[in-house]
Amino acid sequence: MEKIKAIVYGVGEMGKIMTKFMVEKGVLIVGAIDVSNIGEDVGEVAGLGYPINVRISDNADAVLSEQKADIAVVAVFTEMERMYPHLKKCIENSLNVITTSEEALYPWTTSPELTAKLDKLAREYEVTVVGSGCQDVFKVNLISVLTGASHTIESVVGKKSFDVNDYGPVVAEYYHIGQGKEDFHRWVEKGGGKPSFSRMNLEAIIADLGLTVSCIQEFVEPEIDDIDLECKALGKIIRRGEVIGMTETVEFDTEQGIKFRETLTGRIYRPGEQDINENEWHIKGIPELDLSNKKVPCGIATGTQMVNRIPDVINAEPGFITVEKLPKLTYRAYPLHFYLHKR
Amino acid sequence: MEKIKAIVYGVGEMGKIMTKFMVEKGVLIVGAIDVSNIGEDVGEVAGLGYPINVRISDNADAVLSEQKADIAVVAVFTEMERMYPHLKKCIENSLNVITTSEEALYPWTTSPELTAKLDKLAREYEVTVVGSGCQDVFKVNLISVLTGASHTIESVVGKKSFDVNDYGPVVAEYYHIGQGKEDFHRWVEKGGGKPSFSRMNLEAIIADLGLTVSCIQEFVEPEIDDIDLECKALGKIIRRGEVIGMTETVEFDTEQGIKFRETLTGRIYRPGEQDINENEWHIKGIPELDLSNKKVPCGIATGTQMVNRIPDVINAEPGFITVEKLPKLTYRAYPLHFYLHKR
Repeated sequence: MEKIKAIVYGVGEMGKIMTKFMVEKGVLIVGAIDVSNIGEDVGEVAGLGYPINVRISDNADAVLSEQKADIAVVAVFTEMERMYPHLKKCIENSLNVITTSEEALYPWTTSPELTAKLDKLAREYEVTVVGSGCQDVFKVNLISVLTGASHTIESVVGKKSFDVNDYGPVVAEYYHIGQGKEDFHRWVEKGGGKPSFSRMNLEAIIADLGLTVSCIQEFVEPEIDDIDLECKALGKIIRRGEVIGMTETVEFDTEQGIKFRETLTGRIYRPGEQDINENEWHIKGIPELDLSNKKVPCGIATGTQMVNRIPDVINAEPGFITVEKLPKLTYRAYPLHFYLHKR
Repeated sequence: MEKIKAIVYGVGEMGKIMTKFMVEKGVLIVGAIDVSNIGEDVGEVAGLGYPINVRISDNADAVLSEQKADIAVVAVFTEMERMYPHLKKCIENSLNVITTSEEALYPWTTSPELTAKLDKLAREYEVTVVGSGCQDVFKVNLISVLTGASHTIESVVGKKSFDVNDYGPVVAEYYHIGQGKEDFHRWVEKGGGKPSFSRMNLEAIIADLGLTVSCIQEFVEPEIDDIDLECKALGKIIRRGEVIGMTETVEFDTEQGIKFRETLTGRIYRPGEQDINENEWHIKGIPELDLSNKKVPCGIATGTQMVNRIPDVINAEPGFITVEKLPKLTYRAYPLHFYLHKR
């Protein structure tokens, strides 16, 4: 049986991790696309410690058309609007695609037209497009499986909170650290913060349970503390009363009467403050159910799930397929081509 | 589309819960078998509050052969040896079977001959036999899905502990409460406590990941405290140094080098002592992963999972099929016959 051939499309932090994992799981890297490190060997750039004779190119068209690959592993943007030309290009070169794009996890209602176009194109070219990443296991499939123990469900509620000080300046700015309350509210009034990432994973769960959405609501609230706190990424003290982060809340009502809610809080923690669980879910109903993960190593776990999903993407029927429709994702003990049913 | 027709085989506590859940999920109960409450209406016995015109009979042969059912829902014994004649009888009447038998969750190595016989018979009669229950979600499939985020795995370790005082005298006796240490060790030397229930769910995970067992070890250790404790179920004080419960440990080595271990402790807790999590799993590897459930309502969650699994059992290929091979179990928002692919 032949190895799976992959093109790494985007060799940033995530592309590097995935390159390393793919090589270790017996995938043959046949192309690498990025606007940085052009001409360098992707094995060296990914930190394998040895070259794999594939040089990074900024000519996506050439790499996609010249290499006969099974799949493109795409880590470039979050939004479907920015992803669209890249995904289209992969499909038109008859490549299956898996992407880290957060919106691609379940883009049917946030970008319905682009998703329908890509779905149609993928069917024409008989390839499959999937958005995966850390949410696949931790925010969709673990929760779906937990509902397997439910007789009736009133609500499904997820909660995640993290310390902005664990990340760099991009995250600190995204969370409006140090802004005045009034400026924050003006941003929200102009539609800031929508769609929240939580929207996509809740929609995937709702689709998995065969439910129909009747109402979607999204809220963004600033986080404020009454003591001064240090923002390490920005290298300054945030005064009490200034914004130290925000909480995004997404709420779904369904025609079947089941409610879904998820809150995501990113803020500066007080010294010594820590979460007991990074990911926490509660299902109200018969019976009451809960699930939590103390740690969700999102960076690396995006890489692991993207790579473990590769055979599922190649095996799947053509089209834009969301992760709740793929087989149960499990550890890959063998080289990834051992898991292929078709080619 | 016609409703699914089921026979309740065993109308004990679990049979009652499942009868209620099945009726509420649109299943037609067409027969009920038990040695108690003979002649009574199973709807009344199950606490529905109204009769469903099905009387409990102790003549299993008559009920199984006269009613044209799709599935028998069997809750009678734990061990495959005691289950065998009941399962055989169901199969020979062309009935699919789902059972709460703990050993039936994965009986291929603990009772290989009986399982192979039932598997062969089920294929002949073109029906499916499945063992499900609380372990399906909480001890097999949640853990399998969590491994989907693993790049490499060194070990998978599960831990459950419970207060024997939450249960009745049968459990207290099973856990040797009040016995002397020497008597306990004599019981262990004679092979007491094997196979542990944890063995089956670990084997199901190992099968799900496509691994090969190289070594199985089971240990049973008494739990002792250095203060006197009250055993409520037995209505007596257990003196310090006497047995207040036991810990069962199952360890698997696999040819792929991944270790699995599960410990189950049942003992009398000190006043005020409580578990933070009732079900706790840790995966050592890249990355480190964990999962826990604060509460696992085992009684009711056995009923919910058994009932939610019914369409999967009817849909499955013929034979003795273990739960890790069935589709991802999720909540059933609609009457169960909506989930059938075949009849």
